[in-house]
Amino acid sequence: MRLKMESYIKEKQKEIVAALEKVDGKSFIIDSWERKSSGGGGISCILQEGNVFEKAGVNISVVYGKLPRAAIMKMKADHKNLDPSVESLDFFAAGLSMVLHPKNPMAPTVHLNYRYFETMAEDGSTQSWWFGGGTDLTPSYLFDEDAIHFHKTIKEACEKHDKRYYPTFKKWCDEYFFVKHRGETRGVGGIFFDDLDDKDPEQLFSFVQDCLNSFLPSYIPIIQRRKDMPYTPEEKDWQQLRRGRYVEFNLVHDRGTAFGLNTPGARVESILMSLPLTAGWKYMHSPAPDSREERLLEVLRKPVDWV
Amino acid sequence: MRLKMESYIKEKQKEIVAALEKVDGKSFIIDSWERKSSGGGGISCILQEGNVFEKAGVNISVVYGKLPRAAIMKMKADHKNLDPSVESLDFFAAGLSMVLHPKNPMAPTVHLNYRYFETMAEDGSTQSWWFGGGTDLTPSYLFDEDAIHFHKTIKEACEKHDKRYYPTFKKWCDEYFFVKHRGETRGVGGIFFDDLDDKDPEQLFSFVQDCLNSFLPSYIPIIQRRKDMPYTPEEKDWQQLRRGRYVEFNLVHDRGTAFGLNTPGARVESILMSLPLTAGWKYMHSPAPDSREERLLEVLRKPVDWV
Repeated sequence: MRLKMESYIKEKQKEIVAALEKVDGKSFIIDSWERKSSGGGGISCILQEGNVFEKAGVNISVVYGKLPRAAIMKMKADHKNLDPSVESLDFFAAGLSMVLHPKNPMAPTVHLNYRYFETMAEDGSTQSWWFGGGTDLTPSYLFDEDAIHFHKTIKEACEKHDKRYYPTFKKWCDEYFFVKHRGETRGVGGIFFDDLDDKDPEQLFSFVQDCLNSFLPSYIPIIQRRKDMPYTPEEKDWQQLRRGRYVEFNLVHDRGTAFGLNTPGARVESILMSLPLTAGWKYMHSPAPDSREERLLEVLRKPVDWV
Repeated sequence: MRLKMESYIKEKQKEIVAALEKVDGKSFIIDSWERKSSGGGGISCILQEGNVFEKAGVNISVVYGKLPRAAIMKMKADHKNLDPSVESLDFFAAGLSMVLHPKNPMAPTVHLNYRYFETMAEDGSTQSWWFGGGTDLTPSYLFDEDAIHFHKTIKEACEKHDKRYYPTFKKWCDEYFFVKHRGETRGVGGIFFDDLDDKDPEQLFSFVQDCLNSFLPSYIPIIQRRKDMPYTPEEKDWQQLRRGRYVEFNLVHDRGTAFGLNTPGARVESILMSLPLTAGWKYMHSPAPDSREERLLEVLRKPVDWV
């Protein structure tokens, strides 16, 4: 499974980067990196100050070695099969992660991450394995049809495998991407799952493949219809404040970011590529009553069932 | 001591706000707030999009009540006298905290916070008390004379009370404001201390008063000589990236921010007023060799003894 996952995410990275370059017109820069003093490495593909994307990162990483306590506690949701008393643990992780921040405030930010984990006993045998991941959409201006299309596409991918997956993982996404101190979700959701080992590895690998394959159909139609819409400077300012909230979630609450920053020899620039090119914070900003900005906040405070 | 500290920080807030309004030419907005469903409140004074300051906050808060476990662990550095097994604790905290982000990239950001804490036994008697606080300077462009003046002024305030304070608290500041995942300090330091109860309360209150009284003399001459300096768009861009690092420290590492966000009924807008109006993140940005930007990074990687 390690090799299969590695080769699959490499191929998907190329395909996604090529599709995004076609949308943007500019090329990604490609950085291969190796993990200092421990095993593994990755490939970061970044497009910065493009025509359509302010900042876009499509990264893969395949890392293994010893994981310290601080990172162990961030590596999975339920910690089952993880002995809380160990000081370090042999692990393997392979994943693709992506964040796209478009320039146009009418076009939503999107995040995606799918990963495969293994932990090993001292004799090198596999102790546990699981898949995790998900994808979610974060608009500054909400177009219901975008949220519906995004959820519908993911739901179809889920339903090929298990009827329970979409409702369960949609709810988990709303709960996971909740900015507790603000009382709002990061965006209009999508799916999120972790610790997934309820079927055999091949079946789950096939599920993850279908999820990842649904990314381009879920997002490309949205970015195509939003990227050239007119907008005002005030709408750009609102986008900056929403980007600020994105930063708050990623730096304060995101388990993936904390896992990365606590993994020795981690490549900080690849982890923090998720942060937008620009963001802003205004004291006590609140949108005008009945405005589009206020409508967004209402939806973020009370997640909607889009499909 | 509770009342004395409260009345002192109220008076200082007025004095500092008046002095900063004189520098800026615009007025602060003043928000009084009360803590929902628990004791205390505060006054937030904010100046946003001023002539000199992009964002400036001078806040006081006096809060008390029951503190949950998550916040207890963030409330002091060494946790001595704090029983780690308790689920909640009666506490009192009064403090003044301030962050000023100037517009001009030649003018440094400054942060200051002084606070008095008490915890109570179940019968209401004081269990422990301490002072904490400090101040630190964060330039985007380093002028050695500014760092020297800032440290010299604080050192003089410290030395009226204890010869060991400045060297000890200067080192603590460099260690505390260290952005671990970046391998650099937030700025050129200042002083930081916590759990301070090594003399009697009156003596320590007098020390904290001298520290706070030294703020205007430490910063006003610096902002006066930098606020109108010419700068290029590229220098403004560099300031944005440095603001991004400021956000990273505050959201990932700062114990004060974590304490605030974990205190029930906390006023999030007052806690996060420390975040700049605008910030930016570029993938793999690195300054030109022998540039002023590179010189700053060298100093941040290896703190300097300024006086």
